[in-house]
Amino acid sequence: MINGVNAKDVAKLAGVSQSSVSRVFFGGTPVSEKTRNKVLSAAEELGYNPNEFARSLITKKTRIIGLVMKGVENPFYPQVLKEFTTAFKKLGYSILFVQTNNEEIQKEDIDMLLNYNVAGIIITDAMLSLKVTNDIKKSKIPLVLFNRKAEKNDFLSVCTNNLDASRQIANFLHQKGCSNMVYISGDRNTSTSRDREQGFIETLDKHQVEYKIYESDYSYEGGYQTAKSIVLKGEIPSAFFVANDIMAMGVLDALRKHSIEVPLATKVVGFDNIAMTNWPIYNLTTWEQPISKMVEKTVNYVMEEIDNYTGIAGNIEIEGQLIERSTT
Amino acid sequence: MINGVNAKDVAKLAGVSQSSVSRVFFGGTPVSEKTRNKVLSAAEELGYNPNEFARSLITKKTRIIGLVMKGVENPFYPQVLKEFTTAFKKLGYSILFVQTNNEEIQKEDIDMLLNYNVAGIIITDAMLSLKVTNDIKKSKIPLVLFNRKAEKNDFLSVCTNNLDASRQIANFLHQKGCSNMVYISGDRNTSTSRDREQGFIETLDKHQVEYKIYESDYSYEGGYQTAKSIVLKGEIPSAFFVANDIMAMGVLDALRKHSIEVPLATKVVGFDNIAMTNWPIYNLTTWEQPISKMVEKTVNYVMEEIDNYTGIAGNIEIEGQLIERSTT
Repeated sequence: MINGVNAKDVAKLAGVSQSSVSRVFFGGTPVSEKTRNKVLSAAEELGYNPNEFARSLITKKTRIIGLVMKGVENPFYPQVLKEFTTAFKKLGYSILFVQTNNEEIQKEDIDMLLNYNVAGIIITDAMLSLKVTNDIKKSKIPLVLFNRKAEKNDFLSVCTNNLDASRQIANFLHQKGCSNMVYISGDRNTSTSRDREQGFIETLDKHQVEYKIYESDYSYEGGYQTAKSIVLKGEIPSAFFVANDIMAMGVLDALRKHSIEVPLATKVVGFDNIAMTNWPIYNLTTWEQPISKMVEKTVNYVMEEIDNYTGIAGNIEIEGQLIERSTT
Repeated sequence: MINGVNAKDVAKLAGVSQSSVSRVFFGGTPVSEKTRNKVLSAAEELGYNPNEFARSLITKKTRIIGLVMKGVENPFYPQVLKEFTTAFKKLGYSILFVQTNNEEIQKEDIDMLLNYNVAGIIITDAMLSLKVTNDIKKSKIPLVLFNRKAEKNDFLSVCTNNLDASRQIANFLHQKGCSNMVYISGDRNTSTSRDREQGFIETLDKHQVEYKIYESDYSYEGGYQTAKSIVLKGEIPSAFFVANDIMAMGVLDALRKHSIEVPLATKVVGFDNIAMTNWPIYNLTTWEQPISKMVEKTVNYVMEEIDNYTGIAGNIEIEGQLIERSTT
């Protein structure tokens, strides 16, 4: 449509119906080879370039996936964005990127995605209000919550198995002989932080190990300040389990600032296995989130739902693994 | 269009022409208030929800900006993505995100953007072939190279003033008494790395200060390995100017690994002022790229060109500033 040539012009020059032109470019009942050839030569002659919008009006489908993301400051999420973009590109789909600064996704963001008639929606680190949930359900657009559990089983969620991960981390630190521990939480209204907390403390309870819980916010600064206040109170535990890597790096820097040696005086475990945890200055023991597998499951689900919408909901949990480095 | 109701249905129920319906929803010659009311009540009754695709077929314009990005591993770029998304959102525009893994943008990526009839294109850290350049010029879609200079003045480029920045950095280190220096380059086929190198060495030449140039790749690992090899050769200079922050952090970690004290034994200056440079473990002296101003200039240009395409090209350079921290 860029040059103003449309299907009607092509049909006229080819001496066929407009419906034949549509069927050649957008599918539907097949046309004869003769008709197809006529259409293609006319299209070439006129420079007809059917765009996605024309296509979508006929097929009622777009090849756009809306991706809603909050925290690009945490390197975990740019990595997730990259993997989704690459995976969907292979399937001929593009990413409409929505940045939200709110914990809860605003109705206007979802309205925009519905307005573009996106084929699917993926939300990484934000929450949906009931109103927005209903709008999406009505539109029959598949939606996946990535790295967040669905609150009411409204949608499909794809996570690593956070409960199992934090149980294994608790057992690992217990076996290392840590006798009192600290859990530094992320935003406590996120399912990821709650699950990591639950698995950790129920395992420590079982082993009768003491612990304290400090609330933080999934940011480097949050981890740094929380650890600093713990150090200043002189309450250094034998181990910290920190709800994500970027906070754990803040914890390590605060401990280093106060000359507290890791892993001798205390141990630190993070969560995510972002690339920076492997930097020699951190070399952080952490839990690897299997991003590629999580992305693959999400993409498969979205593509299946695009083909045949069922609205099926539930939680898919994928096993991760402990990456032992020098902070334990 | 989601529910299958179209402008024709609305026109029929309202008893007005289809053109009136278009003009109510998509602009053009105004309609009378009476007609407008008829159209709106019919639209409401039928649940008519004109989507962006329908809109774009009539107005021949979309409200999508294509953003092409390569290196999301460098936190500078997720920050740029966030600022562009926020700025365009305020203007009612959305971001179609394209991730390229190649130095040179592939024709298929640009074809996809043209296919979506995007209103504008922004490219952050990749290059355009001549073929692709011609396709974009022909489409009359405004394009901005962000943080890269245009090779042949084909397009508008928006950068910080890299030459001036590196001259000031050279003067600053010279005044600190550094008598031999090292420049660690980024990808040497990028304009940013070349300009930073040029400004730096021409100023050192003027002051008759010795220097060596090492080629690296804008990655943390590249900075780490380059500094490590310099240390192992025993050729530690009195200062390092490193072409971006993420590499400079690698340099700092390599120096720390070999117990070389910064800023006593050597000094380090980075470039970008990404958030991490302020982390206490790095506290890196660097050059602040004025991202917000660069984004503002880019957005203004794109919006003006959308209104009235001129295809004007050239380089806009915005002054940044030195941020002195503890590595100098």
